[in-house]
Amino acid sequence: MFPRIFGHEAGGIVESVGEGVTDVAPGDHVLPVFTGECKECPYCKSAESNMCDLLRINTDRGVMIGDGKSRFSIGGKPIYHFVGTSTFSEYTVMHVGCVAKINPEAPLDKVCVLSCGISTGLGASINVAKPPKGSTVAIFGLGAVGLAVSVLIPPLIVLQLQPVHASDLHLFARRIFTVEGARIAGASRIIGVDLNASRFEEARKFGCTEFVNPKDHTKPVQQVLADMTNGGVDRSVECTGNVNAMIQAFECVHDGWGVAVLVGVPHKDAEFMTHPMNFLNERILKGTFFGNFKPRTDLPNVVEMYMKLCWRSCPPTTARGRRCWPCRRGSSRR
Amino acid sequence: MFPRIFGHEAGGIVESVGEGVTDVAPGDHVLPVFTGECKECPYCKSAESNMCDLLRINTDRGVMIGDGKSRFSIGGKPIYHFVGTSTFSEYTVMHVGCVAKINPEAPLDKVCVLSCGISTGLGASINVAKPPKGSTVAIFGLGAVGLAVSVLIPPLIVLQLQPVHASDLHLFARRIFTVEGARIAGASRIIGVDLNASRFEEARKFGCTEFVNPKDHTKPVQQVLADMTNGGVDRSVECTGNVNAMIQAFECVHDGWGVAVLVGVPHKDAEFMTHPMNFLNERILKGTFFGNFKPRTDLPNVVEMYMKLCWRSCPPTTARGRRCWPCRRGSSRR
Repeated sequence: MFPRIFGHEAGGIVESVGEGVTDVAPGDHVLPVFTGECKECPYCKSAESNMCDLLRINTDRGVMIGDGKSRFSIGGKPIYHFVGTSTFSEYTVMHVGCVAKINPEAPLDKVCVLSCGISTGLGASINVAKPPKGSTVAIFGLGAVGLAVSVLIPPLIVLQLQPVHASDLHLFARRIFTVEGARIAGASRIIGVDLNASRFEEARKFGCTEFVNPKDHTKPVQQVLADMTNGGVDRSVECTGNVNAMIQAFECVHDGWGVAVLVGVPHKDAEFMTHPMNFLNERILKGTFFGNFKPRTDLPNVVEMYMKLCWRSCPPTTARGRRCWPCRRGSSRR
Repeated sequence: MFPRIFGHEAGGIVESVGEGVTDVAPGDHVLPVFTGECKECPYCKSAESNMCDLLRINTDRGVMIGDGKSRFSIGGKPIYHFVGTSTFSEYTVMHVGCVAKINPEAPLDKVCVLSCGISTGLGASINVAKPPKGSTVAIFGLGAVGLAVSVLIPPLIVLQLQPVHASDLHLFARRIFTVEGARIAGASRIIGVDLNASRFEEARKFGCTEFVNPKDHTKPVQQVLADMTNGGVDRSVECTGNVNAMIQAFECVHDGWGVAVLVGVPHKDAEFMTHPMNFLNERILKGTFFGNFKPRTDLPNVVEMYMKLCWRSCPPTTARGRRCWPCRRGSSRR
C-alpha cells in the first residue's frame, strides 16, 4: 500500500461530485471523516452504533470502493489512499459517505479537528459514559507523549495557526476534550490520571478538578481513586491505549452503578483481565469508536455546538469579537 | 458460623414485629429475601443499583445487625442465621429490610421462588440485557447439573407440590426464566447453549428457539453463534458461573451494539480475559445481582406480574379455572 497519501483530519470545500451524488454539491463545506456512514447498512440503521459496514475505517484498503482503483498517480503509477480521506494533499477524492456537510460559517481551520480526535473524546463522555449531574469522573491519560508544554498552552490556538494532522496533537485534543465532555455532561469532580504531572496545570483549565499521578502512590491507582471517592468513581474514561490503564479504569468505578468507557486503541497482543465478580457487582464496561458519533448525521451538530459555545462565551475584545470554545477558560485568542 | 439454619427462598406470614417496624404488620404475606433494601443507603437511593449497603447478602454474618446476636438457640447455645433469612425453619426472625410485602392472594408455595432465582434470571433479561423487539439472544446454561429430566417436566409443577430450597432447583428456575425474560422482553430468536442436550426439549417449551451444544462443534462456540446470526447475537446472558462461558457469552455478541450480561457466580480464582478491541468495537459487558431488582420495591410487582400472566392464560379446565404462567406452554397443572 505504498506509496500513499496520508492524512485524515481536515476541512474542505467540495470541488465536484460524481454521478448519482446528491447529498453534497460543489461549494459545500465538509469535513472528511476516516470512518463513513453509508446510511444503508445494519450499523447505520441501528441507533446504537456508528460502525458502518461499508465505510468503517480500513487502513489496508488504498483504493476506491466502487471500482477498486486509486484516484492518485505519479508518472503513471498509482498512489494509494489512506482511511478513505487522504487529506495530506491539496485535492482529494473520497466516497460521499465519508464527508459530513457542515455549516459554511464554521472556520474550517478549526473545526477540522472535530472530524476525529475531539469528537472521539467528547462523544466518549456525552454519548457513552454519560456522567449524571454531580457525578465523579476519572480520565486516564491527559496528554500525548512528546508534546511540549509550550505547544499545549493553549492547545487549540496552535490548531488555529497551524492546522495539523499530527497524531500526537489529535491524541492530545481527544484527551482534553474527554474532560470537556465530562464537564458538559454534568460531572462535578473530574479526576485526571496521568504519569506526567506537567499536564495537570493545563488540564485544570479544561475542567479537571483533581489529579492522580500513579507514580506518587504505592497502592494500585484503582484503590487510590476508590479511597478518594468513597468506593469508586461514577464514570471513568480511558484514553491511553495501555491495557493496564484500561483495567485500572474499569476497576476504579463504583460497584452498583459504575460505568467505564475504553477509548484508547490497544496493542494487538493486549489482554484485558479482571475478576468477573467486578462485573457481577454491577459495574459496566463499554468501548467506543469515534465517540459513537455517526459522522454524517452527527458531525454537523457537533460543529454547531462548537460554534454556539464559542459565540456565547467570547468577549468582544478579540479579532472577530468572539472567543472560541477552548479559549474561554482564560486564554485569549492571541 | 455453625451450627446454623440455612434456607432463603420461602414465603411466609408475619407473626409479630419489633419496635419501630411500620412497613409490615402481623398477618402480612411476605417473601423473605437473601439481600435487603434499607431504602436509606446510596445504593438504595440510586435508580441504578440494588446492592444495599446495609443488607447486601452476607454469608459470613450469622447474627442480627442491630445487636450482633442470634435469635436461634438450642440448649442455651446460639444457632446462627444464614443470609438474613434462615428459612429452613417454621419460624424465623429477620430485618424488616429483608422482607417484601406482597399481594396476600398470591400462592406462597409458588411465589416463594420469586425471591431469588427466578427473579434473578427474569431481571437479567428485562432489566439489564433488555433485548429489543425482534432481537436475537443467546442464553448460556439451561439447567443445573444433577437435575433429572423427570423433575424438570414441567419444573414449576414440582415447585407447587413440593416447595423447595434446593439450590439445584432454583438454579434451574433461574436459567429457564432467563429464557422467559428474553421472550417477554421481545427477543425473536433465543438460542440456548448447553453442554447437556437433554435440556433442550424442555427449554423449547419456555421459549428457546434454537440450541447449540459446544460439544457438537470444533469451532469456538462464539464463532458458531456468530455464524448463525450474521456476526453475533444482539444480547447474551451467561448463567453458568463458568468463566469460559462468561468469555464466550461476551465474545459472541455483535459488534456495534451487542450487550452481554453475566449472572452466574464465578469461582474465586476465575479470571475474565478478552482482547480489549472487543470492547472498542462497541460491545458492552454488564453483570447483575438479583436481576437488578430492588427487593422491597420491585418484588411485589414481580408477584403481580406472575399473577396477571397466570390468570390471563389459564384455561377454564383446571382446579381454579386458571393455568399458571409456567404452565401455559402445553403442560396442565395436574
